[in-house]
Amino acid sequence: MEVVEKAKQARLASLRLSKLSGEERNSALLAVAEEIERKGRWILEENRKDVEEAEALLERGEITKPVLQRLKLSEDKLADIVRMVRSVAALPDPLGKTVYAMEMDEGLEVYRVTCPIGVICCIFEARPDVLPQISSLSLKSGNAIILKGGREAKHSNRAFFRIFREKTEELGVPAGWIQMVEERWEVRELLGLEEYIDLIIPRGSRDLVKYIQQNTRIPVLGHAEGICHVYVDEHADIEKAVKICFDAKVQYPAVCNAAETLLVHSKVAGEFLPRIAELYRRAGVEIRGCPRTREIIADAVEATEEDWRTEYLDLIISVKVVDSIDEAIEHINTYGSKHTDAIVTEDRRNAMRFVTEVDSSSVMVNASTRFSDGYRYGLGAEVGISTGKIHARGPVGLEGLTTTKYIVVGNGHVVADYLGPKAKPFKHRRIDHDWREALKP
Amino acid sequence: MEVVEKAKQARLASLRLSKLSGEERNSALLAVAEEIERKGRWILEENRKDVEEAEALLERGEITKPVLQRLKLSEDKLADIVRMVRSVAALPDPLGKTVYAMEMDEGLEVYRVTCPIGVICCIFEARPDVLPQISSLSLKSGNAIILKGGREAKHSNRAFFRIFREKTEELGVPAGWIQMVEERWEVRELLGLEEYIDLIIPRGSRDLVKYIQQNTRIPVLGHAEGICHVYVDEHADIEKAVKICFDAKVQYPAVCNAAETLLVHSKVAGEFLPRIAELYRRAGVEIRGCPRTREIIADAVEATEEDWRTEYLDLIISVKVVDSIDEAIEHINTYGSKHTDAIVTEDRRNAMRFVTEVDSSSVMVNASTRFSDGYRYGLGAEVGISTGKIHARGPVGLEGLTTTKYIVVGNGHVVADYLGPKAKPFKHRRIDHDWREALKP
Repeated sequence: MEVVEKAKQARLASLRLSKLSGEERNSALLAVAEEIERKGRWILEENRKDVEEAEALLERGEITKPVLQRLKLSEDKLADIVRMVRSVAALPDPLGKTVYAMEMDEGLEVYRVTCPIGVICCIFEARPDVLPQISSLSLKSGNAIILKGGREAKHSNRAFFRIFREKTEELGVPAGWIQMVEERWEVRELLGLEEYIDLIIPRGSRDLVKYIQQNTRIPVLGHAEGICHVYVDEHADIEKAVKICFDAKVQYPAVCNAAETLLVHSKVAGEFLPRIAELYRRAGVEIRGCPRTREIIADAVEATEEDWRTEYLDLIISVKVVDSIDEAIEHINTYGSKHTDAIVTEDRRNAMRFVTEVDSSSVMVNASTRFSDGYRYGLGAEVGISTGKIHARGPVGLEGLTTTKYIVVGNGHVVADYLGPKAKPFKHRRIDHDWREALKP
Repeated sequence: MEVVEKAKQARLASLRLSKLSGEERNSALLAVAEEIERKGRWILEENRKDVEEAEALLERGEITKPVLQRLKLSEDKLADIVRMVRSVAALPDPLGKTVYAMEMDEGLEVYRVTCPIGVICCIFEARPDVLPQISSLSLKSGNAIILKGGREAKHSNRAFFRIFREKTEELGVPAGWIQMVEERWEVRELLGLEEYIDLIIPRGSRDLVKYIQQNTRIPVLGHAEGICHVYVDEHADIEKAVKICFDAKVQYPAVCNAAETLLVHSKVAGEFLPRIAELYRRAGVEIRGCPRTREIIADAVEATEEDWRTEYLDLIISVKVVDSIDEAIEHINTYGSKHTDAIVTEDRRNAMRFVTEVDSSSVMVNASTRFSDGYRYGLGAEVGISTGKIHARGPVGLEGLTTTKYIVVGNGHVVADYLGPKAKPFKHRRIDHDWREALKP
């Protein structure tokens, strides 16, 4: 089928999806979970084909070992996927929630109510667990989905896609709500289909995300990179600073919320830097420092301008000594990626200034940047992390896959009565019941 | 100054704006209101220059009479503008509101808090009241603003711009927070500055809005057109249907929330159509009907496929007879513009189906489409109406000029403690205090 035809079908299905109740969407998800359990063996066989092909690619040096690792499914991982699908079914329904309710006049009420966005397109890397996750979140939130996974996971993706499509359609979910494309050129075509696609969620490398952001007019939810900072203030508790800076860099350096740069106030640099340098040295972290850092840490490499703009995703950190919180904030707002930045301080006024003036999606006081995550924030499920300012920002939960509509319920009301010399006034009294009350039989 | 230089200055100022308190933003607005009062005479003189130039253009047929009308300021209109600026100052502060608060663990809390978007660019038609309105809303919400007004209002815009810039900077608002460009080619340049501009709000003709939507990757908040429908259901109260369909078309046909198409159930068409046709005839409304409509209203013009896609903004309406609510919903989702659509029915189940399945930003039951408006909805102020699905949808209040950031406050917490075999569990307990509590001295 043509790409545009798939997108059209997704659009049509998305309109029909609005008819399903929360229970119907949940039953379909539970049926999918059961089917994944039932067909576990077959899924693992399909995954085995991907792994074998990837092993050949690895030998020829065309992919890296981590790619191969991420590709492999096991019985344990499959059980995790089944649990994940069931946990999405168990989440509260994100649709039909009243977020604003106002009596405009006697018998005339307006409600703002959450509803699906429409058609989501998700472009993701070669990991077999992404397809079941994003498909579950889409169905839960009443959205149609177009999937494009990494080619290396082709067989695994096809297996999950087939189970999702067949089981959900059997349970009455509108045919065509889930679509898949496999070729890279098809992505380029998708990027031009703003008539049929409402939102693109790219998950993967910085280059992939940047390519998508620069080649579509469809809104993109995501982040290209995480250049996260920890600022050790002059009023920092040095014990906490050492703990946090170690965790933020070393605990899992390959992820977007790991720290890439430390900014250290000159008044505490002499005490703090030798201590963190010793821990970093033992953990194998390379330090790239500004001249003042290198006066304290003799074996630090010289940091260049480029270092302040670099997301290492590795055991490397850049360190700069600053003379004020203003300099730290300015550095972050200049070189950061608006992802996650932290201050270590016992001074509440400086903490307040930092969280207000740093223009990032997550700002932290005395905590590791690594906490920036939808699950840890208690959102229930994470759709992705957005560094854009429009729609959803920071770790995005199910709510990010919804929008709202206004529902007005009257009794023959016309605007003419509220205009002119004999105009009736509006009451504008907040009400606190659910919108469904207004349409109760 | 170069366009890009203005945008850069706006970005820098936007970062400094976050330091201002709500009181400081309000004082600046009140000072502006006073200055507009004080300099009223000068503003009217500047406006007079615009009007004189426009009169010459009107004589040469280069602008229309309504454009000239909208351009004219009077003492009364100026008083309205002063009142509007003061009323924006009186609105509750949209910034710093806690919208989500969760205890992750003992002493580790996460808050989602409203904050400014950054730099807004507003492109608007030749009306001298838009600049003071959008500038007030931007300052209230802590955003920097780049303004491009219609050329015909050049002198009036310069006058208001000067007052806003001088008075606010005098009161400590960061220099450069308000910028203006005047030439059409500068708009094209603005559309490419995604590095410095976070949101574009176009207000004006369909062609202007479409041009902007199609030529930028910056998010656009607005609507190109309002093809609004009223569906008269088989279970409609005919009195209400007549009242609503008359109001929706005739009360003010030149606006986006006026109705352009009536869909009438075949079971009530025989009773309803002659009555509304008689009222429309007296009001000078031209009816363009489907074949079944023309069997009932003999003098109706034949509607073409094009009519269903047309926003007349005039005393013309297209009418179609349908055999079911499904057909009505499908027509609206196919030909509508996702702006505002209404059903007239006494059947609560049909009302429920209509508001759920019609994919528009405002859906109404037994009320005129003309109610779709931020002031009428009780939002306090209207930034615009959005038919997009991302960020804000429908009439947009001050909230639409804000985004959120996550603020995490810990006490030396690190992620390593929450992972591995000895992992501490997260508490994830909802808390209900304001985020500022966590940073109280």
